[in-house]
Amino acid sequence: MTIEKQQAKATEATLNRIFTIPESPETTLGKIERQISENLGGFLNEHIVALEKPLTEIEQDFSGANIPEQPSFVSDHTQHLLDKLVAQSVHTASPSFIGHMTSALPYFVLPLSKIMVGLNQNLVKIETSKAFTPLERQVLGMMHNLVYKQADDFYDAHMHSRTHALGAFCSGGTIANLTALWVARNNAFKAQGSFKGIAAEGLHKALAYYGYDDAVILVSERGHYSIKKSADVLGLGRDNVIAVATDSEQKIDIEQLRKCCESLSKQNKKIMAIVGIAGTTETGKVDPLAEMAEVARQYQAHFHVDAAWGGATLLSNNYRHLLAGIDEADSVTIDAHKQMYIPMGAGIVVFKDAEAANIIKHHAEYILRKGSKDLGSHTLEGSRPGMALLLYASLHIISRPGYELLIDKGIEKAHYFAQLIAQHDDFELMTAPELCLLTYRYVPAWLQQKLKNKNTPLATEELINAKLDRLTKVIQKQQRESGQSFVSRTRINMERYNNRLVVVFRVVLANPLTSKEVLQEILNEQVAIAEQHQHLLADFT
Amino acid sequence: MTIEKQQAKATEATLNRIFTIPESPETTLGKIERQISENLGGFLNEHIVALEKPLTEIEQDFSGANIPEQPSFVSDHTQHLLDKLVAQSVHTASPSFIGHMTSALPYFVLPLSKIMVGLNQNLVKIETSKAFTPLERQVLGMMHNLVYKQADDFYDAHMHSRTHALGAFCSGGTIANLTALWVARNNAFKAQGSFKGIAAEGLHKALAYYGYDDAVILVSERGHYSIKKSADVLGLGRDNVIAVATDSEQKIDIEQLRKCCESLSKQNKKIMAIVGIAGTTETGKVDPLAEMAEVARQYQAHFHVDAAWGGATLLSNNYRHLLAGIDEADSVTIDAHKQMYIPMGAGIVVFKDAEAANIIKHHAEYILRKGSKDLGSHTLEGSRPGMALLLYASLHIISRPGYELLIDKGIEKAHYFAQLIAQHDDFELMTAPELCLLTYRYVPAWLQQKLKNKNTPLATEELINAKLDRLTKVIQKQQRESGQSFVSRTRINMERYNNRLVVVFRVVLANPLTSKEVLQEILNEQVAIAEQHQHLLADFT
Repeated sequence: MTIEKQQAKATEATLNRIFTIPESPETTLGKIERQISENLGGFLNEHIVALEKPLTEIEQDFSGANIPEQPSFVSDHTQHLLDKLVAQSVHTASPSFIGHMTSALPYFVLPLSKIMVGLNQNLVKIETSKAFTPLERQVLGMMHNLVYKQADDFYDAHMHSRTHALGAFCSGGTIANLTALWVARNNAFKAQGSFKGIAAEGLHKALAYYGYDDAVILVSERGHYSIKKSADVLGLGRDNVIAVATDSEQKIDIEQLRKCCESLSKQNKKIMAIVGIAGTTETGKVDPLAEMAEVARQYQAHFHVDAAWGGATLLSNNYRHLLAGIDEADSVTIDAHKQMYIPMGAGIVVFKDAEAANIIKHHAEYILRKGSKDLGSHTLEGSRPGMALLLYASLHIISRPGYELLIDKGIEKAHYFAQLIAQHDDFELMTAPELCLLTYRYVPAWLQQKLKNKNTPLATEELINAKLDRLTKVIQKQQRESGQSFVSRTRINMERYNNRLVVVFRVVLANPLTSKEVLQEILNEQVAIAEQHQHLLADFT
Repeated sequence: MTIEKQQAKATEATLNRIFTIPESPETTLGKIERQISENLGGFLNEHIVALEKPLTEIEQDFSGANIPEQPSFVSDHTQHLLDKLVAQSVHTASPSFIGHMTSALPYFVLPLSKIMVGLNQNLVKIETSKAFTPLERQVLGMMHNLVYKQADDFYDAHMHSRTHALGAFCSGGTIANLTALWVARNNAFKAQGSFKGIAAEGLHKALAYYGYDDAVILVSERGHYSIKKSADVLGLGRDNVIAVATDSEQKIDIEQLRKCCESLSKQNKKIMAIVGIAGTTETGKVDPLAEMAEVARQYQAHFHVDAAWGGATLLSNNYRHLLAGIDEADSVTIDAHKQMYIPMGAGIVVFKDAEAANIIKHHAEYILRKGSKDLGSHTLEGSRPGMALLLYASLHIISRPGYELLIDKGIEKAHYFAQLIAQHDDFELMTAPELCLLTYRYVPAWLQQKLKNKNTPLATEELINAKLDRLTKVIQKQQRESGQSFVSRTRINMERYNNRLVVVFRVVLANPLTSKEVLQEILNEQVAIAEQHQHLLADFT
């Protein structure tokens, strides 16, 4: 046999093996799998190294664009992944990593994910997903019910209807928001008279037919960047997302919203959508949804609520009132991979009106045939995995009261932490928690005095804040790099400092394993780091 | 204790358990997990029932839109999922299910998926994905290399560059195609002079500034429905997707393409993009890519190739020539969850020009800061899971020669099956395979004679074809419902029948476990079913 033939034979043997013979429990991959099953937390603690490597060093391990010409043994490759990838990944499940919107996962989602991957269903159509289609429709019904609480007969009539879609399961909140705004746009410029609708003829002809110069979306200046991205994709243009000012509570200023709408209308611009935020990414605040709904009705605008992060609060009967008015929204985005403890890749949009999504309905010859119940006829995505299974299982296993407990604990923990910060001499609470998110920064007591002193000139205040910005960045970076804990940072405009953009720490307290002790330790670590950098504040002593 | 308090205590106990204590190997979920690890095929064969329930019956098991008020035990719920969901799912991995574009998976992707889910990284930014970011950038580099074969220094310069993106990892081919056309649109109408670009100002102003009446996308009539969907989403309108006729080989008619372009240009329409297909969904044919590229250059149109299904053929040095010209495309879509044997949810788009995707670049305050290497600054989606890990591992473990073997076997099997059909008296091969996809139908020998006879009046031929359409549908449905095997069906225009749309069986031969015996049995089963329905053809005997 020539060397080529020998190689070909070896490759073929490998191939036959990987499609048929399972890994033995004694191999590296088999062992890892057992470890993960038995103790995910332990596995992550053991394999993710605390000390962070510089990115450029990590890149060395992922260089070269050639697809390998030699097969690797599964065990060797698994060891490589452990050493180079897992070791340098982010411990998102750690109780002291409180800067992420993701958190620890309930253990049962891991084996269920494996069932999902093994079944490898494609939710685009019934032919490739069978029972997964009614399951996903039911999950959409439950999420619709969570927001809109319609009567049972509404769900009996629409949940499994071939001519309705209560929403869409998406890969994430961005696609969910985009889908909502796509629906909003197409309903705003639907077929009428000689016009075949924007879906057929396009935006330029829609504006011409309806006689508008432009179409705009209004959202507070705290709006998620996916809104602007959606405006770009949908052909409206990012400049047509109007950022409305927020009030001292970091919520949309409803008077400003009214004024903006009035002024834009006078400029012959169609108010296509108004977007309320139920839990902003940066401060966790909820916009005054009921009042926004009223403005939207006045201008016949689509009212969308981006509750990607905060929507899960509806599961708590104790706190759902914080989102009052959300049931007046035409559409709502909720990410199950945030506060519903589902792994990454589970966004949802629901529509109040079961007919709303029909404006984006589409068919094709080989799939999504007319009259089918295929989910793909109402989704932006085509082929999609069966992620709905994980949410379905969690809704049953955790149940609403279980989620309520998780939500309540998160909010109460945030209030506790806010108190801890407020009572500490050397921290300044920047935005108090409404849900389980808050922002703060380190400011030594003596400097807080100076900032509060009305005799301190504005220019000095500005200089102090600039130095504090620097210090906050340094603390956040050093704390992250030390690998014991993680808070994130952002910049928010603070009324108390003349609406200056101030750098702040941002924490999200959704991980049920985060204890009061952990919170205290995070503050202690920040004080310790800050003390190494007091020279940054030397000018003001 | 009141009942409420008792309930609350029980809920809390459940919660603490699900976030900390693993399932014991002796519980239902633990057992399933072991079964899947040890023998996925066996698990699927055992649990997926052959006999299909009517959808309305399955829907009974997924009715009710109320989120449960009582937690379920994990084991009980797992049993419920086995009985109601898994039992009624589709056996996509079965060697005799040859109607899907998905196939059996290599066993190692299951435990690796579990690692991926357990790590729960978010690829939108480095802060939540660390080493996964360079890993995904390397995978994009490899896929770019597969298509464009640039020199090593190109990849050294761009793969990990903070100012470039060689492509985007997406949830699927639809998002990949949409991303490509988004880039195409924004580059066609970029900032210039007083115009800030379509991304900022929108399509209507772009057309006005550049002086066009419309912007169009050209694709053959075999184009995937995601192209029209993209045109809708992007604001161009579905009517601005121009379906170009195909030739007798079911490939785009290049003369027709040229004529269309000329005529559309004369109508003052911008030829925004020309889309070639490398493996159409319905017939598996590859458009003449090099010739299309030439036309695209002539009109300064973006040339996109939708190789979602067929792109993996590039991994075979023996068959990559079938996609000649693909390296002249400005962008290419390849789905790793099709012929690259990755689970559902792995679409990829690559851009020839490393600068191309900068036209959709976006930033935000708290993530994707300017100068970061965050992947999210160049993707349509926001939060995304670490699916790139599975492709990375497969590229290493299977390696290029391993994929070559899989691709070659698929194509050779398709040719074998085509021969089997052609030699069989009672089947008609409708479209021969170019890659591993072909279409055919059952036509008894005596009726084939009648169809071939030039004396048969056209009206009779039409009547025969109508009855055969009915028969093909009946056979396909009955075969699917019997649960032993699955071929899909579609309708394609057949030149030999005056371009009539004819219903056909469609098979995709990518599953390495599909044997020659399985193929013979599928034909035998179809003949047996057909014999039960000969009355449908009684008019012509």
